[in-house]
Amino acid sequence: MIVVMSAGATEEQILSAQKAIRALGFKDHRIGGEERTVVAVLGHIYPELQDELGTIDGVDSVVRISKPFKLASREVHPHNTVVRIGNLAIGDGSVVMMGGPCSVDTEENVLECAHAVKAGGGHLLRGGAYKPRSSPYAFRGHGEKGLQILATAREATGLPVITEVMDARDVDLVARYADILQIGARNMQNFTLLDEVGKAGRPVLLKRGLSGTIEEWLLAAEYILSHGNRDVILCERGIRTFETATRNTFDVNAIPLVKRLSHLPVIGDPSHATGKWYLVEPVGLAAVVSGADGLIVEVHPNPDHALSDGAQSLTPENWKKLVDKTAVIAAAMGRSMAVDAWENEAARKAS
Amino acid sequence: MIVVMSAGATEEQILSAQKAIRALGFKDHRIGGEERTVVAVLGHIYPELQDELGTIDGVDSVVRISKPFKLASREVHPHNTVVRIGNLAIGDGSVVMMGGPCSVDTEENVLECAHAVKAGGGHLLRGGAYKPRSSPYAFRGHGEKGLQILATAREATGLPVITEVMDARDVDLVARYADILQIGARNMQNFTLLDEVGKAGRPVLLKRGLSGTIEEWLLAAEYILSHGNRDVILCERGIRTFETATRNTFDVNAIPLVKRLSHLPVIGDPSHATGKWYLVEPVGLAAVVSGADGLIVEVHPNPDHALSDGAQSLTPENWKKLVDKTAVIAAAMGRSMAVDAWENEAARKAS
Amino acid sequence: MIVVMSAGATEEQILSAQKAIRALGFKDHRIGGEERTVVAVLGHIYPELQDELGTIDGVDSVVRISKPFKLASREVHPHNTVVRIGNLAIGDGSVVMMGGPCSVDTEENVLECAHAVKAGGGHLLRGGAYKPRSSPYAFRGHGEKGLQILATAREATGLPVITEVMDARDVDLVARYADILQIGARNMQNFTLLDEVGKAGRPVLLKRGLSGTIEEWLLAAEYILSHGNRDVILCERGIRTFETATRNTFDVNAIPLVKRLSHLPVIGDPSHATGKWYLVEPVGLAAVVSGADGLIVEVHPNPDHALSDGAQSLTPENWKKLVDKTAVIAAAMGRSMAVDAWENEAARKAS
Amino acid sequence: MIVVMSAGATEEQILSAQKAIRALGFKDHRIGGEERTVVAVLGHIYPELQDELGTIDGVDSVVRISKPFKLASREVHPHNTVVRIGNLAIGDGSVVMMGGPCSVDTEENVLECAHAVKAGGGHLLRGGAYKPRSSPYAFRGHGEKGLQILATAREATGLPVITEVMDARDVDLVARYADILQIGARNMQNFTLLDEVGKAGRPVLLKRGLSGTIEEWLLAAEYILSHGNRDVILCERGIRTFETATRNTFDVNAIPLVKRLSHLPVIGDPSHATGKWYLVEPVGLAAVVSGADGLIVEVHPNPDHALSDGAQSLTPENWKKLVDKTAVIAAAMGRSMAVDAWENEAARKAS
Repeated sequence: MIVVMSAGATEEQILSAQKAIRALGFKDHRIGGEERTVVAVLGHIYPELQDELGTIDGVDSVVRISKPFKLASREVHPHNTVVRIGNLAIGDGSVVMMGGPCSVDTEENVLECAHAVKAGGGHLLRGGAYKPRSSPYAFRGHGEKGLQILATAREATGLPVITEVMDARDVDLVARYADILQIGARNMQNFTLLDEVGKAGRPVLLKRGLSGTIEEWLLAAEYILSHGNRDVILCERGIRTFETATRNTFDVNAIPLVKRLSHLPVIGDPSHATGKWYLVEPVGLAAVVSGADGLIVEVHPNPDHALSDGAQSLTPENWKKLVDKTAVIAAAMGRSMAVDAWENEAARKAS
Repeated sequence: MIVVMSAGATEEQILSAQKAIRALGFKDHRIGGEERTVVAVLGHIYPELQDELGTIDGVDSVVRISKPFKLASREVHPHNTVVRIGNLAIGDGSVVMMGGPCSVDTEENVLECAHAVKAGGGHLLRGGAYKPRSSPYAFRGHGEKGLQILATAREATGLPVITEVMDARDVDLVARYADILQIGARNMQNFTLLDEVGKAGRPVLLKRGLSGTIEEWLLAAEYILSHGNRDVILCERGIRTFETATRNTFDVNAIPLVKRLSHLPVIGDPSHATGKWYLVEPVGLAAVVSGADGLIVEVHPNPDHALSDGAQSLTPENWKKLVDKTAVIAAAMGRSMAVDAWENEAARKAS
Repeated sequence: MIVVMSAGATEEQILSAQKAIRALGFKDHRIGGEERTVVAVLGHIYPELQDELGTIDGVDSVVRISKPFKLASREVHPHNTVVRIGNLAIGDGSVVMMGGPCSVDTEENVLECAHAVKAGGGHLLRGGAYKPRSSPYAFRGHGEKGLQILATAREATGLPVITEVMDARDVDLVARYADILQIGARNMQNFTLLDEVGKAGRPVLLKRGLSGTIEEWLLAAEYILSHGNRDVILCERGIRTFETATRNTFDVNAIPLVKRLSHLPVIGDPSHATGKWYLVEPVGLAAVVSGADGLIVEVHPNPDHALSDGAQSLTPENWKKLVDKTAVIAAAMGRSMAVDAWENEAARKAS
Repeated sequence: MIVVMSAGATEEQILSAQKAIRALGFKDHRIGGEERTVVAVLGHIYPELQDELGTIDGVDSVVRISKPFKLASREVHPHNTVVRIGNLAIGDGSVVMMGGPCSVDTEENVLECAHAVKAGGGHLLRGGAYKPRSSPYAFRGHGEKGLQILATAREATGLPVITEVMDARDVDLVARYADILQIGARNMQNFTLLDEVGKAGRPVLLKRGLSGTIEEWLLAAEYILSHGNRDVILCERGIRTFETATRNTFDVNAIPLVKRLSHLPVIGDPSHATGKWYLVEPVGLAAVVSGADGLIVEVHPNPDHALSDGAQSLTPENWKKLVDKTAVIAAAMGRSMAVDAWENEAARKAS
């Protein structure tokens, strides 16, 4: 950390700041500039130190130098994390396609959708049994019944299942049904939930919060990693900005930047990032070409009657088109599409 | 709702949109404009309808007309909600001052701080036993031990206690110790937590999320209200914007706007909204003069050594100055300061 | 326009609003909903009407239905605009590569850079003779001398030149030297400058403002188009958001959305959108794959010593790599790279 | 400046960075931390240096320490700047009230409005002869005829006039009519315009841009100051954020922060900051109580028929109420209202 003194700080104030730094157990290193003095603080820095030093008389500001995340950091762990579900690998350079309805409604619809996802070339089935909704009057998901429907669809198609968990009390239950636990954008900083999925023994897909900085997102991953769960997948799903022509703004910059800062896989979610089905394909391809390890997309056989988020769901035809174009782009970049998780149901049950 | 057709929509598309509206059980009402046709949708509208209608062929956009919150709305409930704790009333026009440390550390410090809050003219003691922290390596609060310290401080000073609850599993525990449950900014859309505090039988102070719109904030209040808990207090604590010179941007516009849209009391939090102790007084006064029912402020006897957020804490001297100036401004506006919750310990125990 | 009355509006207020609408020369059309009454306003709507109607007693809000831009709108002009400079076509489906230094410094450097841009496969030379700089103490460009250097580089390489004009007084001068006039992000709403370039007889590349909405951006294009200049090229260069890990946030959603809303070509600027040279390639490819008609990129033979923006400039090697990868991606999508503007110097002079 | 090396930087990279710093004429000062090495750069730092040093191999980031504005800085110039127009002082602790129509329409209306502003207790007349408008089809002001109307209104009421200049070519003309030149939000970084008003010999009110950081705003002031014009007045008018319930978000934090960072007067504009007349009073009072030197407010005798921005204009009655309440709040804080610029017309002509 660097303590920047005010331009008008007195010698006494500078000495007293240095003394305070030493009193907290750090080494101080003073440098006199043209305009003002700065004091470098050396030792095992913790983030709160910034606030503590900021209140000392004559201090203008305190600048952090080291990165606050370690386990998620590529500087510390240079090799890519690869999350495996059967034969399917997420983060090994191949492109993974996750599709499915926003909400789980009826078994019939979910099965139809799962078969369409599979037929179109998908690798995982997504679907919400628990739905975060802005309004208490909106449909909030079928809960365990929804989880059972997803499990039925997995059995019928061989697609592993990813679904959201919203409440720390439901983690065990959801983990019994799901292959990947999803943490939604609104829960990126629900720290007690992060603690629980850190202990759940299942891979976790961590969506970036609506106003989560890249640093906060990686720190949220750090929560999960710090409990020993190494299988964290990041998901960029758009941030909230002043632009209202789309539901959110897909931060495509974040894809290659996070791949550089961290060893964790990154998935793009063009459905929530745009809120418009006709933007899903171009933005999805943009995510892949900029380095994403895959996409998670809303698919619905009959988007007009989806229980939620119809406007951003792809039809099975458009889903297949997206997968096919993604494969073309991936091939052009020397990447391949991911492989299926299991060869057959027996292999899945054995896994 | 108003369904806006594309400028080039065909007659067939318009008719088919009207048919779809009727099929969903609504009345349709078509209006032909200079440039395009719109169809008004009449009936008991639900929010998802917007997405559902948006996917119909030839539809350009769907515009919502009615407000999605009802119980929180002044249109529906014109009279101010007043939350009472003993004799203390929040929302009756008087100005309530809540102060205390960011985190509960030692009993000695909290007691010293509580006495300073009381001596300076405060009405409630704030303090975090559970702390949401961006980093898993930061101090996260003392939990129940912290709650006990707060209870001790209440007994010593007669100040009611407000403290944050972060996890649905802790609601009952925290409600046993606290007079007001606080929902933090990061949990504004933690819907299962909102459900629980809606049933907790305690007033709830609901902080606005970092990127929560005013509508989403009122919808979050609606969650709590919909469980029968009428004692919801809103708290503006700054939103996240592009400006980094302050920790957040205090949305002072929101104070009078929310007072107009809703009957619920609104409190300003200038400490988190600015992140700098020397901005707390001017921004706090701004909140009150624009209509806030009170302030919640970080106070620490010795800000240099606070376990968190030292840079934004007031010393007891500055806290007293803030209360005194607030009283002067309140008086100039014909408002008074709030009264103490209880006359004495016996009254509190009897309450 | 739709005038939405308050839920509690009286019959008298509704009638008086209808009367006001008719007094302004519009037709009114009243619709009674479950909760509130709305009045559709029919006729030749102008944007200020929204504010005028919003002040009427009993009116809750006024909702705009029609789009405020016409000449820029694909609804009105369905066919793609193609901007031509010699044989080079921008907007015909091919991919155009514009490269060059941020600032024009010495003739020697610019020539070296121009040759590298050409050798790497570029189609246009960019470079700033007038530089908008946040600080009055920063280098602000060489002005006309810089324009002359650019003209020399064009002669030496056959690359058409694009350069920024910041002041309405300089439009004629810059138009004498440049093949395309650039309007920078900070001037997107410098309306008198937009008026002047609308009359300059040169194609205009219009950068999106740091906080310009897509609608405001298309309205800024409308200013230029309304003076009879049809050769407007849009340029997405990143918007300002809360995220500070990158200089700006590249709004990749905007690329396909603007291609849908407007017939104008769209160029991506990954250099300013990211501020980091190592993000230029992935974000540039993302722009192209999502539908951009080309890229504008900072290239500098020796980025360490660039007069401005060194951190975001590509070396000639990285520029060539970007062009080559762009060509691969374009081919995978069935698109080709653009062709050179002129076969030789004689052709250019004759043009 | 502090050059932060990557955690994995080699000794060779560090030495080569130090060499580069010395080659640019600066002193280097190396500090080895627990995790990484940093190198302090000493000498006369210029802002571009940050980008230049950022491209050196092995450098992770470069942190700026010194503030880029000098003439606008309170550290350098501790005493408040007071701008004087006749007897009226802006920045001396008194509260100045500026009111008037958004656009200058007819002489009759402007005179009526000016008398109302004066009668209500105002000190200056505002009004736009040149109007920045998002759409080319909106009313853009009467130009010089509008300036003449403003001059007539000044003669009739004795109120000095403040009006916007949008084009460098109009500065001399506007300066002949206006007592204060206004730079609008969209032109905060129109640097050639800033240069011109820096030489115009008139006080300048500089509005903060929609997405202008506080630092950029003070740097824009620095442009004007650097030409020798010391009479710069800052104006906070709301920033663009994700919140759409109000036109902009009034950044009340900025008022006391800018008063601390700079010696220049600061005015609040609650009309544009909110876009709703009923929020003008509470937000205006908030600006004053947090330290603003005055307010600039839209007033219109008949807001329903204003040529622009009717929804945010106060009636004369509400203007008077605002002035009266402001006086009460000012008095409560020990501040007084400003005095009139001139005792009578003769005094004005003599000034």
